[in-house]
Amino acid sequence: MYDKATKPTWIIAKERQKRIAGQETVWLFGLHAVRDALMNPAREKLRLVLTKNAADKLLEAIDLGGIEPEIVDPRNFDVPIDAGSVHQGAALEAKPLHWGTVQDVCITGEGLPLLVILDRVTDPHNVGAVLRSAEVFGARAVIAPQRHSAPETGALAKTASGALERQPYLRVGNLADTMIDLKNMGYILLGLDSGAPMTLAQGITDAEKRPIALVLGAEGPGLRDKTRETCDHLVRVPFVGGFGSLNVSNAAAVGLYAVATAWA
Amino acid sequence: MYDKATKPTWIIAKERQKRIAGQETVWLFGLHAVRDALMNPAREKLRLVLTKNAADKLLEAIDLGGIEPEIVDPRNFDVPIDAGSVHQGAALEAKPLHWGTVQDVCITGEGLPLLVILDRVTDPHNVGAVLRSAEVFGARAVIAPQRHSAPETGALAKTASGALERQPYLRVGNLADTMIDLKNMGYILLGLDSGAPMTLAQGITDAEKRPIALVLGAEGPGLRDKTRETCDHLVRVPFVGGFGSLNVSNAAAVGLYAVATAWA
Repeated sequence: MYDKATKPTWIIAKERQKRIAGQETVWLFGLHAVRDALMNPAREKLRLVLTKNAADKLLEAIDLGGIEPEIVDPRNFDVPIDAGSVHQGAALEAKPLHWGTVQDVCITGEGLPLLVILDRVTDPHNVGAVLRSAEVFGARAVIAPQRHSAPETGALAKTASGALERQPYLRVGNLADTMIDLKNMGYILLGLDSGAPMTLAQGITDAEKRPIALVLGAEGPGLRDKTRETCDHLVRVPFVGGFGSLNVSNAAAVGLYAVATAWA
Repeated sequence: MYDKATKPTWIIAKERQKRIAGQETVWLFGLHAVRDALMNPAREKLRLVLTKNAADKLLEAIDLGGIEPEIVDPRNFDVPIDAGSVHQGAALEAKPLHWGTVQDVCITGEGLPLLVILDRVTDPHNVGAVLRSAEVFGARAVIAPQRHSAPETGALAKTASGALERQPYLRVGNLADTMIDLKNMGYILLGLDSGAPMTLAQGITDAEKRPIALVLGAEGPGLRDKTRETCDHLVRVPFVGGFGSLNVSNAAAVGLYAVATAWA
């Protein structure tokens, strides 16, 4: 046995991630999200609840998913999904995906050396849309703190439109510590802040094609002080109108596009 | 009286718009959306329903809005707003804003000669986010067909985060006809299509700083055939990942950013 004090950090991180993965389960819902999860061999499936109608539509996916569905009457469709959500008669209880450590994914993962870091973005629709855009632009991962972030629920999966199964979404214990780790790996951290004097394009040019992590805060509070201070540069999306600010997923899409085209 | 056959098109259009504006009312809800509408002198207000708690938070806006609130008990908050929506104890029945004709807004309106055209985008969250981004990047208007588009409801207003009160959102009878009108005004119509051989950046360069309208379709069906054929060019947002597509509001934000920075 290792003594806790001497145990290497990467082992502690791996153990922690396993512990979390072991405890948590998520309920995914909606025909698309359930189909995508069933067809993902890396997704550990626990319970599949379907109406007859949904089961007919998911025949092929059920076959591949290797889990026996519980067929229920639409009136008795009783699973713990987000209130007011449209489940389309399909729900799957599953384990969160295990993507590996931040090191594994961010150093040698697939895609461009490009990350999106979300500081306490709690709206699942926003996180889902960010995962979707991250996948489209070939980013390596979306990183968020374990607490105060949207969990891998059905609403997120639905907005992500399949990207939840394919795009690494890493939840970390301490975001500032992870940001410092990323700097040590060679990432330049660009924090998006509407009041920054430097433009996004300038920040990207200055990074001289080194790996980039775009750091975005939640609507309203924006980046926390510690997060802001840990960034290499604060950059703004230049805008013309006198009012308003971009929705966080739209800001992420603009940032990803700007990096991807600068590197093309 | 004009005979219908000889009545000039612009008079018919104005009359039509007035007729629609006369018939329709919208229910806006949520503290932010209601505050923004109350503080907009151009917004015709019909009924203001508030809980005591919401009224306390909106004191200043109520004062400016010039409409007497009906104070109701939270348990009796009964207004026709979108099911499952969080109203925060505040709802306002109002007339849609009258922005003027497409000609008025697109030729001499405020902002850049830049438009977003939405072909049957029915999700109010997407349209709200597009209005918000359009305002940020100083676009002149968002244009959508009268039918099969998200109406100015509370969900749209909430996602638009104030932009609904400030950003022209024009609903037109026939989208293809309006697109032809816009071409005649000098707009280049760039239709976003993931299968297009030309990139967005190339399309913008080719337009040589002439006015640009970005044309986007709904998730799934994309641009209708008639809409697609009426575009000057189809362009794609280049992407690296092998899967996925951008959410329509994220695609609009990327397009607006690309044009605004090319023109800067």
